[in-house]
Amino acid sequence: MANIGIIGGSGYTGSELLRLLYMHPEAEVVAVTSRKLEGKKIWKQHPFLRGFYDISFVSPELKNLEGCDVVFTAVPHGKAMQHVPHLLDAGIRVIDLSADYRLKKEVYESVYGLRHEAYRKAVYGLPELHGDEIRRSELVANPGCYPTGCILSAAPLAKAGVIERVVFDSKSGITGAGIKPTEFTHYPNVHEAVVPYRVTDHRHYYEMVQELGGFQPDLKISFTPQVFPGSRGILTNAHIFLREEPDIKKIRRMYEEFYRECYFVRVQDEVRLSWVRGSNFCDIAIFAGEDRVVVSSAIDNLVKGASGQAIQNMNIMLGFDEKTGLDFPPLFP
Amino acid sequence: MANIGIIGGSGYTGSELLRLLYMHPEAEVVAVTSRKLEGKKIWKQHPFLRGFYDISFVSPELKNLEGCDVVFTAVPHGKAMQHVPHLLDAGIRVIDLSADYRLKKEVYESVYGLRHEAYRKAVYGLPELHGDEIRRSELVANPGCYPTGCILSAAPLAKAGVIERVVFDSKSGITGAGIKPTEFTHYPNVHEAVVPYRVTDHRHYYEMVQELGGFQPDLKISFTPQVFPGSRGILTNAHIFLREEPDIKKIRRMYEEFYRECYFVRVQDEVRLSWVRGSNFCDIAIFAGEDRVVVSSAIDNLVKGASGQAIQNMNIMLGFDEKTGLDFPPLFP
Amino acid sequence: MANIGIIGGSGYTGSELLRLLYMHPEAEVVAVTSRKLEGKKIWKQHPFLRGFYDISFVSPELKNLEGCDVVFTAVPHGKAMQHVPHLLDAGIRVIDLSADYRLKKEVYESVYGLRHEAYRKAVYGLPELHGDEIRRSELVANPGCYPTGCILSAAPLAKAGVIERVVFDSKSGITGAGIKPTEFTHYPNVHEAVVPYRVTDHRHYYEMVQELGGFQPDLKISFTPQVFPGSRGILTNAHIFLREEPDIKKIRRMYEEFYRECYFVRVQDEVRLSWVRGSNFCDIAIFAGEDRVVVSSAIDNLVKGASGQAIQNMNIMLGFDEKTGLDFPPLFP
Amino acid sequence: MANIGIIGGSGYTGSELLRLLYMHPEAEVVAVTSRKLEGKKIWKQHPFLRGFYDISFVSPELKNLEGCDVVFTAVPHGKAMQHVPHLLDAGIRVIDLSADYRLKKEVYESVYGLRHEAYRKAVYGLPELHGDEIRRSELVANPGCYPTGCILSAAPLAKAGVIERVVFDSKSGITGAGIKPTEFTHYPNVHEAVVPYRVTDHRHYYEMVQELGGFQPDLKISFTPQVFPGSRGILTNAHIFLREEPDIKKIRRMYEEFYRECYFVRVQDEVRLSWVRGSNFCDIAIFAGEDRVVVSSAIDNLVKGASGQAIQNMNIMLGFDEKTGLDFPPLFP
Repeated sequence: MANIGIIGGSGYTGSELLRLLYMHPEAEVVAVTSRKLEGKKIWKQHPFLRGFYDISFVSPELKNLEGCDVVFTAVPHGKAMQHVPHLLDAGIRVIDLSADYRLKKEVYESVYGLRHEAYRKAVYGLPELHGDEIRRSELVANPGCYPTGCILSAAPLAKAGVIERVVFDSKSGITGAGIKPTEFTHYPNVHEAVVPYRVTDHRHYYEMVQELGGFQPDLKISFTPQVFPGSRGILTNAHIFLREEPDIKKIRRMYEEFYRECYFVRVQDEVRLSWVRGSNFCDIAIFAGEDRVVVSSAIDNLVKGASGQAIQNMNIMLGFDEKTGLDFPPLFP
Repeated sequence: MANIGIIGGSGYTGSELLRLLYMHPEAEVVAVTSRKLEGKKIWKQHPFLRGFYDISFVSPELKNLEGCDVVFTAVPHGKAMQHVPHLLDAGIRVIDLSADYRLKKEVYESVYGLRHEAYRKAVYGLPELHGDEIRRSELVANPGCYPTGCILSAAPLAKAGVIERVVFDSKSGITGAGIKPTEFTHYPNVHEAVVPYRVTDHRHYYEMVQELGGFQPDLKISFTPQVFPGSRGILTNAHIFLREEPDIKKIRRMYEEFYRECYFVRVQDEVRLSWVRGSNFCDIAIFAGEDRVVVSSAIDNLVKGASGQAIQNMNIMLGFDEKTGLDFPPLFP
Repeated sequence: MANIGIIGGSGYTGSELLRLLYMHPEAEVVAVTSRKLEGKKIWKQHPFLRGFYDISFVSPELKNLEGCDVVFTAVPHGKAMQHVPHLLDAGIRVIDLSADYRLKKEVYESVYGLRHEAYRKAVYGLPELHGDEIRRSELVANPGCYPTGCILSAAPLAKAGVIERVVFDSKSGITGAGIKPTEFTHYPNVHEAVVPYRVTDHRHYYEMVQELGGFQPDLKISFTPQVFPGSRGILTNAHIFLREEPDIKKIRRMYEEFYRECYFVRVQDEVRLSWVRGSNFCDIAIFAGEDRVVVSSAIDNLVKGASGQAIQNMNIMLGFDEKTGLDFPPLFP
Repeated sequence: MANIGIIGGSGYTGSELLRLLYMHPEAEVVAVTSRKLEGKKIWKQHPFLRGFYDISFVSPELKNLEGCDVVFTAVPHGKAMQHVPHLLDAGIRVIDLSADYRLKKEVYESVYGLRHEAYRKAVYGLPELHGDEIRRSELVANPGCYPTGCILSAAPLAKAGVIERVVFDSKSGITGAGIKPTEFTHYPNVHEAVVPYRVTDHRHYYEMVQELGGFQPDLKISFTPQVFPGSRGILTNAHIFLREEPDIKKIRRMYEEFYRECYFVRVQDEVRLSWVRGSNFCDIAIFAGEDRVVVSSAIDNLVKGASGQAIQNMNIMLGFDEKTGLDFPPLFP
């Protein structure tokens, strides 16, 4: 049984870790931190967890996490780097759900406009691409929610080196904006709406460049995110223009081959957010027109896009089967 | 052409007044106040109004409102009373959308926990009940959103004096909570939810007691509000227990008779929020079981529940037909 | 390992049984029937289950279910009775999710307007009330979705015999209307709507009368259902009028005591559908005003309101802990 | 006062024509046809219109429409062509909301897989592009909902001849699928979903090719539609790749210039469906990255995407100001 700590347990990714880890047969949450909520019972903050956890929040000091085998840092970017090196130095493996360790230092500092005071080498935690490195890593940088679906939907073609240009048009549920009320999350501003934001300059773009560019350095990537009226889920259309005429059958075989060993990627005929909700699956469907391939992908942004993928990474790091504790059907409809 | 002022033009009831008054053939908005937004173009704050208003917000001083025939006060309770007496003393008629003048002074002070520093006698602005008094009034207290639908759904039976008990179970769209983001209006907290709040102690209850008790002093009233996942609309079920066995045909005739001259109350076979959305209608449907009458009512909380009813009141005060500028179909579906 | 059969696997309660039973450590689905879909892979019909089941639908003949220890009948009322006696006669225990065995024969025939051709004695499968009888039963009639939340919210007070009158005002997600598209489930008819239906004559009323009347024969019950814009969940307000002045602390203790051994009933300070979604919990919160107690209850209509409760019943019948396979947190938010 | 007929008054575009024409000061609806509903009061079919229309549906024979100055055909493609020639031959001007007259005969027959038995020359009724021709036309083919927003978002750059490629990724409310319940419109299938469909082969593509290709024959167009959980509205992102580096200021000036005389196109800093809902506006916002321009457009699919644009066309045909009867603010929020 692995002992698990969570730094930052008051938000959505924190509570989702708690939900998922309860179902994990080989892991037990022993410490959950929150500066503000120190001493408060976890279930008092998250009443949906009533009956599941009896522990209380502790402050995020190292001593409170010392018995942990793995710690998840579920705090905003810029905050995670305040914890990660100390944890690593104490011999604790870390899975960071923030952006702090996803990009190269210089790229990170430029994109996030921050000095990175505590840079360490990390593996980009997309298990379908980096499983072997994750297995050997002490620090895994859990991918952003958008990059997860975007990268998985284009990786096979990028690896084949045949992409001219890809345009990712993504639609996310509102939980992606976090638990804190803002104008952006105000119900009447989202109701019956699709709201583009950071239309040409979202930071997640650089993760896509890093990962897909790792396969095919010369491909051109565009990305536009938006929110849709829903709580969970990201639906992405990858509009892919190839250097050759698309052959739908061949491409579908290519995807099936690429993901043959990947339990959490399902190549389907269509995708629906309700077919992945609550689960760690990334469903993918492939369509082709005369000059374009469209790959639609669907994930639950809080699971495969955050906490579920983090647990998948934990499983790999700890030598468990990657699907341990994540092997349950989505919540449809 | 009547000159109109609006004190408090940054919120939902303010912008709804602007939407509706643009369509009014006999009224022109000449001044809209907001302390915070002074000098800003109205359409910059409310981009949906781009092209409709070229004026800017002014500060809420009397001199900025001096040419007005009518002023609407669309500010929170406790704030309206800071403006109303000065406006009245300057000979300007006032329609107050806050709660400050709806109840008797003592009741108000007890319910809202405030000293009322500027009490004036006002007419409760439910035109279907108080049309004649509104016509002669200088100060109209526009009803709360919940009381409008609740009172109209029970008034005919209360007037007949036959009600033993009525239980109002109301469901409101989220705009009722205002334009400011809070935990209550945070999208994931409302999505796929029906949220009861102030389950047995909502302040609007006292308006119902005042108005329905005016007809039948001994009737027993219960009220529970909740929000549902929608932007606009209040659906109320009035579960009414009578002193006699209900006769559905007779009751329906009673309602049709009661509302015969009321353009904005429609007795329908069923009610749907989409049949009243954006309009000033209160639709009512009557059902009867063995020992109970259920009257379902549907209004748009921002129109008949707030700004539309305020304009209906204005029309009556100024001697116009009550439906002037409000005579357009709902936005279905 | 118990062998499980499902008669009627194409609808929502069928697919929900499949979702939940996959997570059950002691049960395995060996046969799923559908006349129309015979021979089709289950996951082809329910793509969210891709990777979870490799079996195909079979026709609902007894021979296809012969190895089963328990069969769930998830077909419409009137259809279940065509299967149940044959299953029982073959020594197979049955949990019927239809209405066919919930009421006494005469009541059923009157309420559903059908001759009951195959009546058998069944236990009403609300484990919190009838656990002991369920344990000894061969045939359990799984309760309706509305009655589950309604009965649980009033049972402690009914058992104490202190209720004068209770008014249940319930709001259900649309999955309650089934998988077949109708005007009722047409998106624009539900969007931003709360739609009362069968306002004073819904059939589920008779289950409430049977169960609550079993505790307190003279209590008066009223029930009005409606749909709200959501997929899953039923939120019920039980407006309860007592024979004495309500004492909130005493009542709360009474509820906590009543449900002390009931894992799936949680007495909370408030209820949210998102705190029970996907789970078998019935959350309950109690409020009291001067002359009224309001008990709000929240369930997932497809879990505690249908398939989850059915599995809870199965657990009890087979001697498992009632929470086996159902012991996971809700999907919040 | 112009006499108006509507062929096909039972669906959403028909009822939307009725809603909008009621507000038109120069037009009166004198005949509304429906084979199925002949003799039924219009408001009995569309209860939201209670009090607005007292006429009944008539059958769609020419004699029932003879006094009309303009007839709108709001029936499916393939049906409109059965009426249009007879109306034109009787000297009645026609605005066809179906697809029957939008494309060249050969293109139509190929795309819709139908023999066009009654082809007539029509003007493509996008007033911002074809105002002069509409003015002189007897037959206007009202554009599809998607093409309206797509074409308007790219037209200025296409006219300048600088587009290399444009990818339209559109999200539509569900009313676009019509009033008839189907699996596609079944609430649980749309709830919390974004559903791509006809991902690379939607018929509306050919209208875009016709109109934008009319400006710049060599531009490459891709189009993918999807539905989002809302009733009304289409939000389109036009991802535009230029032959030169984009200059956002210059492009914005180009758009403002192009639409200077177009009342119903507003170039905004951002777009929101709630800023156009219920109105005939097409709001446009322009964003630019290093190698890409994104033009987001927002329309109400039933107004600017159908019935409102049809009335705008009628205004032009009859010599009215194009905004007559359409000059009212959107329904926000």
